[in-house]
Amino acid sequence: MGQPKGEALSILKNDRFLKALLRQPVDRTPVWMMRQAGRYLPEYRATRQGAGSFMNLCQSPELACEVTLQPLQRFPFDAAILFSDILTIPDAMGMGLYFEEGEGPRFRKLIRDAEDVEALPEVDVASDLAYVTDAVSLIRRELNGSVPLIGFSGSPWTLATYMVEGGGSRDFRVAKQFLYDQPQAMHQLLDKLATAVTDYLNAQIRAGAQAVQIFDTWGGILTTPAYREFSLAYMRRIVNNLIRENEGRQVPVILFTKNGGLWLEDIADSGCHCVGLDWTIEIGAARQRIGDRVALQGNMDPCILYAEPERIRAEVARILADFGTGEGHVFNLGHGIAPGVNPDHVAAFVESVHELSEPYHQ
Amino acid sequence: MGQPKGEALSILKNDRFLKALLRQPVDRTPVWMMRQAGRYLPEYRATRQGAGSFMNLCQSPELACEVTLQPLQRFPFDAAILFSDILTIPDAMGMGLYFEEGEGPRFRKLIRDAEDVEALPEVDVASDLAYVTDAVSLIRRELNGSVPLIGFSGSPWTLATYMVEGGGSRDFRVAKQFLYDQPQAMHQLLDKLATAVTDYLNAQIRAGAQAVQIFDTWGGILTTPAYREFSLAYMRRIVNNLIRENEGRQVPVILFTKNGGLWLEDIADSGCHCVGLDWTIEIGAARQRIGDRVALQGNMDPCILYAEPERIRAEVARILADFGTGEGHVFNLGHGIAPGVNPDHVAAFVESVHELSEPYHQ
Repeated sequence: MGQPKGEALSILKNDRFLKALLRQPVDRTPVWMMRQAGRYLPEYRATRQGAGSFMNLCQSPELACEVTLQPLQRFPFDAAILFSDILTIPDAMGMGLYFEEGEGPRFRKLIRDAEDVEALPEVDVASDLAYVTDAVSLIRRELNGSVPLIGFSGSPWTLATYMVEGGGSRDFRVAKQFLYDQPQAMHQLLDKLATAVTDYLNAQIRAGAQAVQIFDTWGGILTTPAYREFSLAYMRRIVNNLIRENEGRQVPVILFTKNGGLWLEDIADSGCHCVGLDWTIEIGAARQRIGDRVALQGNMDPCILYAEPERIRAEVARILADFGTGEGHVFNLGHGIAPGVNPDHVAAFVESVHELSEPYHQ
Repeated sequence: MGQPKGEALSILKNDRFLKALLRQPVDRTPVWMMRQAGRYLPEYRATRQGAGSFMNLCQSPELACEVTLQPLQRFPFDAAILFSDILTIPDAMGMGLYFEEGEGPRFRKLIRDAEDVEALPEVDVASDLAYVTDAVSLIRRELNGSVPLIGFSGSPWTLATYMVEGGGSRDFRVAKQFLYDQPQAMHQLLDKLATAVTDYLNAQIRAGAQAVQIFDTWGGILTTPAYREFSLAYMRRIVNNLIRENEGRQVPVILFTKNGGLWLEDIADSGCHCVGLDWTIEIGAARQRIGDRVALQGNMDPCILYAEPERIRAEVARILADFGTGEGHVFNLGHGIAPGVNPDHVAAFVESVHELSEPYHQ
């Protein structure tokens, strides 16, 4: 594998994304999309079809590399993001991850008490998740310095919800009942997950990930005190144990808690470099609250991409104006792109960000 | 029907709820639960079974009255809430509301363009929704002044999402695409709905509802500017056109936007008497932000009711302490109670609120 070595600054033709994460000057606002390698692209659907199953797609470094690069062949995104699933860690713990067509992820095992937590094995990232780090190395080689590569993981709390519920949920009642009735067992579970996530992200960084994002998809379903105790505390621990520099560059960390708009100050104080925003909060208001400390990533409503290109362009303009002049903005959606979006609308989106953002960086 | 008439102050043995909504002194914090008449109660399930269909249950004033009173026979709630569905208005507009077992509400018709909106008939509340006002009158007679009765409606935006989507949704993409691509048609739809909701709530007030709540269940899925323009603006118009006094008492209005914690100041400025809080925001922080202007209702995580009674009691204590001493708190869940909750846990909840709140009102 063409894994970059040593502390020499690797070649990077477009470093807008990394610079913006560190609030350094850029010529245009960098843009990428959560779930940019995904079902809205016909070429993704073809590769996915050929892979036989979603798990095959995730576990083959070659196929994961192929779909990671697909959106970059169509659109001038300023970053690539590793194609993988957020549930690789619970799967490596022997939970038996599988996907039912149209049903989302499921586990064959469930975590329901302290004994189940106790029995969970430690994850040996180097062997159990080699397919992910191999994919990272391969993608880096194929990217050949064109744009940086983002690694990622689910947050401990988000992983725990799936492990306790056995899959997705509408109200997360089983996970919450576990949290409320067995807080010590939940903490033990989160502790194990935080250790695994730290190892996992550090392995991705060593393999070549130039920034990492922690997806706290379900932190926003908690009360404020529970969010702090059961989600943010573990993300903070992870952030503080990540490799800070690799290949002569800082490795910025993005924390994204969906529906976390009430907790921006707490999230910004975690030590992360950038806070991901969903679409419900105004980025200008977020900048006033935490823009002196961190960069902001976001925050267009993903559903805008269903609207006509001129409407998309107007929304891009609104968000750019709301952030205003100066540095520290990575343009993105407030959540992953939906499967039914017309790729032409994505083209209009990316073009609008690059074109309309220029005046804000002079 | 035993409809109360005239301006004389009607008898009310327990007026804690109405007083708290007006931030007047009370002896204990009043408590009720969203969806308190519902599937968690075996007696509700029996009545629902006997009714044949959910629509029959809603449309029979006798059955609606019966299930409205059921929770009050078990628990010392400080208010009753009319049992009905939030989609009675679209149904009265000829949308053809029906319920598929386990699927939630569906409409036979859909609203997809300006012509569909244009074709929607005006609602004649007095005839089309007489089954609701008849239920209100009957419930008032049966309550016999024991506790006040709350009337309610869905917000225009929330009703519109169902009318455009044809039912519930995961990401509301159809409703949002309509909003983004056809804002004028969406405004026309919301305008019609706001007029109907105003008439509907005023009819409930005339029939005996002593407070009303507007459920903006889906306002929280919008961007901040879209929330202000497409949801809050119409709720404000409704609030300003409601009957302010009946039977010699003020008729307080509660606005509840789920996931509206970022917009509390805007909501409080609508003219409402009370802002409903979901469980993600801390009630103490909410009080600091808007407690000088409005009462607050909430805000316990409904999933706590799955936990053991001692845990429920601890959470009640935490929320009471977070609100602190003084007036203007109506205890409630942050969302409706879930079907699987053990009624004994509800008993523990209500008892805890009454018992633990006394020291805060001295």
